[in-house]
Amino acid sequence: MTNEATTRLLDPLFTTEAMREFFSDRRTLQGMLDFELALARALVATGQAPAGVLTAFEQASKADAYDIAALGRDAALAGNLAIPLLKELTARVAASNKDAAAFVHFGATSQDAIDTGRVLQIRDALQLIDEALVKIGDRLAALAQEHSATEMAGRTWLQQASPITLGLKFAGYLDAIERHRARLTEIRGHVLVVQFGGSVGTLAVLGAKGPEIAAALAKELQLALPPISWHSHRDRFAEVASTLGLIVGTAGKIARDVSLLSQTEVAEAFEPSAPSRGGSSTMPHKRNPVGSAVILSAATRVPPLVATMLAAMVQEHERGLGGWHAEWETLPEIFLLASGALYHLSVIFDGLAIDKSKMAANLAGGNGLALTEAFALALTQHEGRDGARKIAEAFSRTAVETGQSLRDVVLKDPQMKKYFSADDIDHIFNPKHFNGSAESIVAAVLAARAARKSASKSGEGKS
Amino acid sequence: MTNEATTRLLDPLFTTEAMREFFSDRRTLQGMLDFELALARALVATGQAPAGVLTAFEQASKADAYDIAALGRDAALAGNLAIPLLKELTARVAASNKDAAAFVHFGATSQDAIDTGRVLQIRDALQLIDEALVKIGDRLAALAQEHSATEMAGRTWLQQASPITLGLKFAGYLDAIERHRARLTEIRGHVLVVQFGGSVGTLAVLGAKGPEIAAALAKELQLALPPISWHSHRDRFAEVASTLGLIVGTAGKIARDVSLLSQTEVAEAFEPSAPSRGGSSTMPHKRNPVGSAVILSAATRVPPLVATMLAAMVQEHERGLGGWHAEWETLPEIFLLASGALYHLSVIFDGLAIDKSKMAANLAGGNGLALTEAFALALTQHEGRDGARKIAEAFSRTAVETGQSLRDVVLKDPQMKKYFSADDIDHIFNPKHFNGSAESIVAAVLAARAARKSASKSGEGKS
Amino acid sequence: MTNEATTRLLDPLFTTEAMREFFSDRRTLQGMLDFELALARALVATGQAPAGVLTAFEQASKADAYDIAALGRDAALAGNLAIPLLKELTARVAASNKDAAAFVHFGATSQDAIDTGRVLQIRDALQLIDEALVKIGDRLAALAQEHSATEMAGRTWLQQASPITLGLKFAGYLDAIERHRARLTEIRGHVLVVQFGGSVGTLAVLGAKGPEIAAALAKELQLALPPISWHSHRDRFAEVASTLGLIVGTAGKIARDVSLLSQTEVAEAFEPSAPSRGGSSTMPHKRNPVGSAVILSAATRVPPLVATMLAAMVQEHERGLGGWHAEWETLPEIFLLASGALYHLSVIFDGLAIDKSKMAANLAGGNGLALTEAFALALTQHEGRDGARKIAEAFSRTAVETGQSLRDVVLKDPQMKKYFSADDIDHIFNPKHFNGSAESIVAAVLAARAARKSASKSGEGKS
Amino acid sequence: MTNEATTRLLDPLFTTEAMREFFSDRRTLQGMLDFELALARALVATGQAPAGVLTAFEQASKADAYDIAALGRDAALAGNLAIPLLKELTARVAASNKDAAAFVHFGATSQDAIDTGRVLQIRDALQLIDEALVKIGDRLAALAQEHSATEMAGRTWLQQASPITLGLKFAGYLDAIERHRARLTEIRGHVLVVQFGGSVGTLAVLGAKGPEIAAALAKELQLALPPISWHSHRDRFAEVASTLGLIVGTAGKIARDVSLLSQTEVAEAFEPSAPSRGGSSTMPHKRNPVGSAVILSAATRVPPLVATMLAAMVQEHERGLGGWHAEWETLPEIFLLASGALYHLSVIFDGLAIDKSKMAANLAGGNGLALTEAFALALTQHEGRDGARKIAEAFSRTAVETGQSLRDVVLKDPQMKKYFSADDIDHIFNPKHFNGSAESIVAAVLAARAARKSASKSGEGKS
Repeated sequence: MTNEATTRLLDPLFTTEAMREFFSDRRTLQGMLDFELALARALVATGQAPAGVLTAFEQASKADAYDIAALGRDAALAGNLAIPLLKELTARVAASNKDAAAFVHFGATSQDAIDTGRVLQIRDALQLIDEALVKIGDRLAALAQEHSATEMAGRTWLQQASPITLGLKFAGYLDAIERHRARLTEIRGHVLVVQFGGSVGTLAVLGAKGPEIAAALAKELQLALPPISWHSHRDRFAEVASTLGLIVGTAGKIARDVSLLSQTEVAEAFEPSAPSRGGSSTMPHKRNPVGSAVILSAATRVPPLVATMLAAMVQEHERGLGGWHAEWETLPEIFLLASGALYHLSVIFDGLAIDKSKMAANLAGGNGLALTEAFALALTQHEGRDGARKIAEAFSRTAVETGQSLRDVVLKDPQMKKYFSADDIDHIFNPKHFNGSAESIVAAVLAARAARKSASKSGEGKS
Repeated sequence: MTNEATTRLLDPLFTTEAMREFFSDRRTLQGMLDFELALARALVATGQAPAGVLTAFEQASKADAYDIAALGRDAALAGNLAIPLLKELTARVAASNKDAAAFVHFGATSQDAIDTGRVLQIRDALQLIDEALVKIGDRLAALAQEHSATEMAGRTWLQQASPITLGLKFAGYLDAIERHRARLTEIRGHVLVVQFGGSVGTLAVLGAKGPEIAAALAKELQLALPPISWHSHRDRFAEVASTLGLIVGTAGKIARDVSLLSQTEVAEAFEPSAPSRGGSSTMPHKRNPVGSAVILSAATRVPPLVATMLAAMVQEHERGLGGWHAEWETLPEIFLLASGALYHLSVIFDGLAIDKSKMAANLAGGNGLALTEAFALALTQHEGRDGARKIAEAFSRTAVETGQSLRDVVLKDPQMKKYFSADDIDHIFNPKHFNGSAESIVAAVLAARAARKSASKSGEGKS
Repeated sequence: MTNEATTRLLDPLFTTEAMREFFSDRRTLQGMLDFELALARALVATGQAPAGVLTAFEQASKADAYDIAALGRDAALAGNLAIPLLKELTARVAASNKDAAAFVHFGATSQDAIDTGRVLQIRDALQLIDEALVKIGDRLAALAQEHSATEMAGRTWLQQASPITLGLKFAGYLDAIERHRARLTEIRGHVLVVQFGGSVGTLAVLGAKGPEIAAALAKELQLALPPISWHSHRDRFAEVASTLGLIVGTAGKIARDVSLLSQTEVAEAFEPSAPSRGGSSTMPHKRNPVGSAVILSAATRVPPLVATMLAAMVQEHERGLGGWHAEWETLPEIFLLASGALYHLSVIFDGLAIDKSKMAANLAGGNGLALTEAFALALTQHEGRDGARKIAEAFSRTAVETGQSLRDVVLKDPQMKKYFSADDIDHIFNPKHFNGSAESIVAAVLAARAARKSASKSGEGKS
Repeated sequence: MTNEATTRLLDPLFTTEAMREFFSDRRTLQGMLDFELALARALVATGQAPAGVLTAFEQASKADAYDIAALGRDAALAGNLAIPLLKELTARVAASNKDAAAFVHFGATSQDAIDTGRVLQIRDALQLIDEALVKIGDRLAALAQEHSATEMAGRTWLQQASPITLGLKFAGYLDAIERHRARLTEIRGHVLVVQFGGSVGTLAVLGAKGPEIAAALAKELQLALPPISWHSHRDRFAEVASTLGLIVGTAGKIARDVSLLSQTEVAEAFEPSAPSRGGSSTMPHKRNPVGSAVILSAATRVPPLVATMLAAMVQEHERGLGGWHAEWETLPEIFLLASGALYHLSVIFDGLAIDKSKMAANLAGGNGLALTEAFALALTQHEGRDGARKIAEAFSRTAVETGQSLRDVVLKDPQMKKYFSADDIDHIFNPKHFNGSAESIVAAVLAARAARKSASKSGEGKS
């Protein structure tokens, strides 16, 4: 069930329901309650509390039962959410088992609950991000394979340069997605840790038992136990943010490409169409690239939010003032936007409409200049590199000025006739002969991915 | 009535209910409906539509009657909110008056409604910001007056430097607040304009009547009419964002000061205390500076959000892809955070607890070095400027190393005894004699404010 | 003379020589020396120092004579540039006039010199920015006039929408440039003020004479005198930064347009070509849009730098730690990038190559769907608005699917034949008949500009 | 030799000479020349070029011999640095060996040289960053050990909370530094790769030999060979930026702490003093924390620069327009600032002056409230948790209001006398008895570090 109270008007456009759920107010509270319950279990496990208290904790640890709006109002006074939540939790535990109340939050500080609860949310959220990447990667792998040899114009500085294949473009996307998956594995190792230090990180209330209880708590939550609490050392959360920033950057790069390809004058690829998708309030013919718009919006919004997380790292002494607070809404926002961007990317690749004939036509258009480099290369044997370049440059200028294709300019030139037969010219100006290693690069990207996949599976088998 | 669907868990902490209301989903819709109603009226006023259609429009223009969640879901498909809203509005208008439906949104484009609706929200929101600034300014003016001569340490680079008065500090805050008010006046002149261009800014659907209808529309909404629509020129909204960024920057500066003054070891000023305010989950003695935390959090979050608005200005052709979308949640977020920051600033100054005796004690503490510059100045007549500086430096080092006050070091020095009588020394080391023009500067700031106020009143009278 | 020591490798690409000069190390020093000289003159003017000291100051106040690298090294130890500069200045003044040395920096603090020096640089730099805007505005006004009726496709969400004129596009650029000029006028009124407060803002060293000397200083520098110093209130500088951010945002928007128009498949407008401009290391035919690249780079870099200036506003007490330092290189960087962006914009508009026939051809291409809205409007009288929209949508789909123009689809439809004569169809599908108020909007923008110009001239005459 | 042309006035303050050297203009050129030389060697190694050409390449590949300013000027026209550099390189190679010139840059594109050259700079720069982290880590480990039991106040929300030890604070810093070192190892694996794709990533000019030559090139440069070139996929560089952002964030956190500890009223720790270090232009007693100022400045400036790198990831098609250019100066700037921040951190810890007695005094000050939690814990056995909390809260309020220490309030209370003997009270209010696991946590952090070190050494031995 989605917590409707956290659904903003444009959430359906900008994010996914699953990610909204993971960062719903209810789940934020649940994360904290999960921490408190696990702490109670750790106290029991280490002999600090009688086992009998747990029933009261278990009953009181369902976020659904709490009045979220009231907690929000009280948090405004207290300055954090844990204080009113703990008050309420204590009352509920006490209501079932008076003695149990003494163990609520024992030895912990507000930030222990808030941060660890957030880590639990991050664990789920990173899993969701990874699943989205896997889905996109699978689709891209299929597309890269399918279009390994589909000719199209390569474009640099927004102008046609030399031919590529569509598969090469997809392989570039795929390889970036794969790098992000590797990063997710690394940062999970960094961030999936418990926060537990008590008021100033000494676990003083627990006396000598602190480390043992901390270990039991971490085990309970299936999180790693760092050697020291990290109340005012926020690199773990900031790293999650920046990794999501990298992912959204890739999504933005792809969306920019897709939206450029779907321009009226280019018309090589289009976002999937669906009834009502991308309509216009006034122009019946419009099919706006909604997915690209959302992704590009995320790629505009997320980098500054990452900067917020980095700037917020400057936290004072044992627990900071303001910096910590700046994280609370920012990190979820980054997850929400990243999830929305990946969702739209997934939709795009699931139904991308590709017009191979328009790709070929565009490649032949623009005075056929996309083969200039190919021509210059062929000419090198006759004119040397520098000479070839100069002739190619002159011919391409002539082509533009006279409205001919470069091929025709070459065909008409007496000197070129001496160098090249008509068959030579056909060969030179066939983009299939100037896509170099495109197909083998696609194969290499796919092979590297397959190798990682099988390594990962065998790794799973072992662990 | 607050739109509960837009109240996030921590909104009560980070923003104000009034601002939340202005940027609630309901008010966002209402802004668009107000645009559509005004357009219908403009069509009537210019003879393009019969007056009889207006009743249907008026009935259909209450946002409360719309299913916000459903519109949000449909916006996800359409890519913007106007499309589903217009569909629904048209149906409602048609239900009361079939002929009226033809005039819904006539000549306009989605962005006309969305942007103008946002301008209407901004108008209310800027008013709220200005009222908050006035309230803070009034309080600061009183405080500056009251403490014009209250001695305290001036601190530079986080160290005691020379004496100031508390009034001077407040006057500095006040003057910044006043500058922001002047900015608000300026940007209102920039941003309170209608957006109306039709699909590509030509008002083509309206034929030759476009400009006349546009003028009627602007009049209806009491907004200015710019000479050209600004669908992909976003400087107006970005300027609102950056002006709020400046305001939050000042709030952050003040909150940093307040939080530093309330450190345990400084203890010169404290946020107002109230039951449950700033409590700790584990430490009964804690009175956390909640207001400062919220403000500093805003001062961390808003600058990157301003960067988002600036970066989003790069919008393509007649209406952009992604940049426009990036604004939708960002600008409201900035208003929400700014409003929350100003609210907490207001609370702080309403109840700031000031400990004048601790100010005096701190000024005398730190080996009394805050009077070093005063001493060096007095010594100049005897030793020249460079000599005085060197002696003052040596004496201050001695004071620190021997744990004496600088005054005592001076008193014990035979050469100084020749230069200065005991009365001289008393005079030199009395901070009251080394706060220079503090009091007249406070007076000047207050006078400048009073002059602006009276000019503004007489200006109001005239216009 | 440009200070070569501050010319970085890519400065010629990213900025202008004039702006580099204004923010050269030498000019930074000169600004501080100008402050110190003006202060000496103010001391003389107010009878605090004998007139005879000025010669020594004047001789010592040439930045060229200082060893910049050595000052930089000493600043690393001192923490700011003023300290080593003042040491050296004092020595030089003393060398010519021993008594004069006592008046060096009298009553001032390092930050007074550094900030006021910066204000002097800003004054020059804003003038340069304004001149660039005027130049661009003049050119845009001419272009808007010339192309007031030049038909081209209006594009929204990166797709053809309905026709506009090229003049309308230029008028949109122009109006934004004009808004920025108005902003420059406003912020000059805010930022061109002296910084003078002494160590903690009290002018204590000057005793009761402080305000009088401050007034003389401001007069000397032709800067306004604010009622209070602003050592730790940085809104003025941050506002300069954010205003430049707005300007660069507009430049980025325009560069995005230009680069999209010059895509191989669009080919409607091109940056001016020149030998070696925008060449490729390998592709002889490439003419890369260098100007757009530089401007878009600036539009990516400047927004976060503005965020830095805003974030740096949180400065502690009477003079801050770190925030102030964060401004030193950031504000000049923003000016440098803004100047470079405007320079390239100016170059682009000075030589923009416009292909009107390609504009017409593109407008007719894309299955001629850019006239769909025009067709739907015409059809409304027969089918009502909703019916017309549905038919237009269906026809435009047919056009795409069958590879025909929309016009041909309409021409072939029996029902349409009943509604429209061939002449009607010609009329409907002539983009000249569907650019609405484009020409009158262009005229309005130009008229508004002319009115401002003449108001500004008559204003100058009066003042 | 530092390239003076790239030394800006404040470089000595904000960065290190070593890092400046790594990103000097000369080294930027050298990186590109190293790429070109390695490519020539790869062509020879794969039989594409005769071995005899290499001498000419070797002779022409010294950046010192090039006219940097002239290249910068030509880059302004060409749009990138590679074009003029290659022109000059070709001329130089040709001058020694006419035939060799044909192999210059063969098969490569400008971006291959620029990006790979940058990777080579990054390799050196990351090594420098890592060495700085090692140095700081070593020092922190010693400090943590030494002060494992040094009592001081733990502070949360800028107020005294409960006792910690100074060693715990240092251990927190150390653990963060260690995490950053682990990140550096990870990102080296990501970023130390060759860029080689030719004009559009197909290596078309090299025909079927492309991959073989690419492998030889990578081997020559001792960089990894990715399966596909990454001209418009910039996650590798953006990740370097964000990792540096994390490091600077930690540095900023520490600098904030140090600057707070060195406030006049706190006076527990001070940056090392040295002649002229942190002096004031007017206040002889000032010892400004220059290192903290520089670090905090970096912590303000770097996060937005990271945002720039992330935002710049949205690059078009095969090679982007503007995004790539935005990286050129931004990534070096981040390295420069990070290096400067770590340098100052290193200086601070090398000479940090620690006043243990002031730490003890401050802990006892503030009405001794830092032991409130300890007292409440002790009281729990008598009053239950809730009761104890309430009494502690009331007593701490009394202490503040009456100006007594909490200890004295407790001592005087009749009920407390019943609960606690004077010895009990002594025990409770001795901070040594309420620092919990501080010492064992310090030991755990040091042990974890030692384990990693020995694992890393044994790993080195193996590889």
